[in-house]
Amino acid sequence: MKRSFIREILEHTTDETISFAGGLPDVALFPLHNLQSASQKALATPQALQYATSTGYSPLKKHIAQWYCHEGFKTSEEEILITSGSQQALDIITRYHRNKSMMIESPSYLGALNLFHLNAMQIEKIALYHDGIDIETFSKKCSSNSLLYLIPDFQNPTGYCTSQDKRKLIAAHCKSENVLLIEDAPYSRLFFEKPLKSISSLIPSHSYHLGSFSKILSPALRIGWIRADKSLLSPLIAYKEAMDLHTNSISQRIVYHYLQDNIGFERHLTQLRKHYKQKMEHFSNLLENYLPNFKFIRPKGGMFIYGRFEGVETTKLVYRCLQEGVVFVPGSEFGAASDTVRFNFTNSSLEQMEFGIKKIAKLLHET
Amino acid sequence: MKRSFIREILEHTTDETISFAGGLPDVALFPLHNLQSASQKALATPQALQYATSTGYSPLKKHIAQWYCHEGFKTSEEEILITSGSQQALDIITRYHRNKSMMIESPSYLGALNLFHLNAMQIEKIALYHDGIDIETFSKKCSSNSLLYLIPDFQNPTGYCTSQDKRKLIAAHCKSENVLLIEDAPYSRLFFEKPLKSISSLIPSHSYHLGSFSKILSPALRIGWIRADKSLLSPLIAYKEAMDLHTNSISQRIVYHYLQDNIGFERHLTQLRKHYKQKMEHFSNLLENYLPNFKFIRPKGGMFIYGRFEGVETTKLVYRCLQEGVVFVPGSEFGAASDTVRFNFTNSSLEQMEFGIKKIAKLLHET
Repeated sequence: MKRSFIREILEHTTDETISFAGGLPDVALFPLHNLQSASQKALATPQALQYATSTGYSPLKKHIAQWYCHEGFKTSEEEILITSGSQQALDIITRYHRNKSMMIESPSYLGALNLFHLNAMQIEKIALYHDGIDIETFSKKCSSNSLLYLIPDFQNPTGYCTSQDKRKLIAAHCKSENVLLIEDAPYSRLFFEKPLKSISSLIPSHSYHLGSFSKILSPALRIGWIRADKSLLSPLIAYKEAMDLHTNSISQRIVYHYLQDNIGFERHLTQLRKHYKQKMEHFSNLLENYLPNFKFIRPKGGMFIYGRFEGVETTKLVYRCLQEGVVFVPGSEFGAASDTVRFNFTNSSLEQMEFGIKKIAKLLHET
Repeated sequence: MKRSFIREILEHTTDETISFAGGLPDVALFPLHNLQSASQKALATPQALQYATSTGYSPLKKHIAQWYCHEGFKTSEEEILITSGSQQALDIITRYHRNKSMMIESPSYLGALNLFHLNAMQIEKIALYHDGIDIETFSKKCSSNSLLYLIPDFQNPTGYCTSQDKRKLIAAHCKSENVLLIEDAPYSRLFFEKPLKSISSLIPSHSYHLGSFSKILSPALRIGWIRADKSLLSPLIAYKEAMDLHTNSISQRIVYHYLQDNIGFERHLTQLRKHYKQKMEHFSNLLENYLPNFKFIRPKGGMFIYGRFEGVETTKLVYRCLQEGVVFVPGSEFGAASDTVRFNFTNSSLEQMEFGIKKIAKLLHET
């Protein structure tokens, strides 16, 4: 099996490398102090150090279930399964459905593609546009006993957002054709304009909704979850249990205690959105100034700017840039055209962005 | 897939249930204060909250590698892969080797059996005696391209220990027949008499050695590892990465900081061994007093007492006891004869042991 370009790069970059590669949050925005306090509360009792239940820490599941309820998506604690990041959530679901057919947006998240291959899914690609998948192709490929994997909000790698109209159409097709939707939503709360209603909420009995604290709190915690109706969720529990017994319960308790300060968490999210929007705008301005041939649409949330250097073999460009201490991901890694790239704009400072983009411009002209 | 009896029970017992079921450490012996200090150190820097490398936290890998070296088993940092508990370690290895033939001790650890089924391994059972597997059967079943799964130290469920002679024979067969050994060693440091040399150290190029902090520090941390030569370990990294990106790095840092106090850790292990030995002796005495028909051998380490109620259908007995607030595991769960059971002796107080065993005696006579 092929390793992720991004994660291999992560192991070979130095502190000096300017990375527009991974989907890394801004270290400066982690709520370190509040997480320190939460960890002291989490470790106040020796019971926190014992084995725990496979489905997750009950108070945390309740808290997450309430989030859904507040959005008008009725959910009980029993409809939440806590996982070791949403990466594992995706593994559990596709492992349970292994050998089935999986429709995906193209391009899509590399970590998902790897899992689908590992679980012997038959992949069906559907072209992704700036407003969502090609509905005509989707309706043709739709068949009972198949699944659909989407990241409707600020997609990885494209940053695209599925429109309200397409959300309704996708939901309707899933329901009528008995397709199960896997809605991966790690970036949903990182909107720059307004939040969007999940597709899952339209089809609770035909969907797995995947959430994560990695992008909105800290990836080191490795806490994600699956929201699904009981009949869909129940058979997954034995898989979760076989795979790692249960999710790190110290982390689960840290997150739970952190979330008890509701206002503090909302303030943190507001800060994240504000800073990431500023960074996106700065990055976009630099791209327009120094790389005018790079064609892209400014994203409305998330962590990525995706676009096209027309006629440029971007894999070669990436390796050349890596030698000079700047790294980003060629679109071919995600199954996209060879002249596309994905930039992450959340992890670097404004100075690093300027230095990095100028460097790319210089190397682009040399090649 | 069938869920683990033990983990299902764990979700249905109350605080009042006396449990001899799971392999739960004694809550009173967790080094809570030292882990609290370690967690403060772990969270001293915001970098601890960022994504981390798939292979594990380098300082922790180095520390574990040094343990092997001190035992005379030459190991470098690159030969350690940190996993989300040794349960995941087992999943990674068997997933990589899926569809191959797996020889197992019979009875064996239920969580391993579940994973072997999930990964479509062809299971070959080898009878387990008090001094290890039946060597004759093993030598007959041995074939290239197959694997052997063993828990040589204080096995789960039997508590048996593979003798030095059998260790050498097993190692020799693995090497000559090109069999890969998976040596699961979560209980190795919980010896009541003396430590035993691992089989893996005799055949470094034919073994995966699995370690865990669950039984010697805290299971909530979910930190285990694989020790294997680079050629065996390298292909596993892509699997680890696809499965959950990386192991909880806050936990890894907590463990690392905790281990910096070498003397404190050794003192903790000494305490664990002393207390668990006392508990094993107390439990054994009670069994001999109140359940004289229960035939067993006192274990020399670990967490379990295994034996036989001759002619009793123990599954029925277990369900009857569960109704009265006492729980343990029928041997049939591990693939053993229907009159066997496994008792855990580490998780209950001396009073609970007495109350629980008297209750079992009472119910046994009623049925």
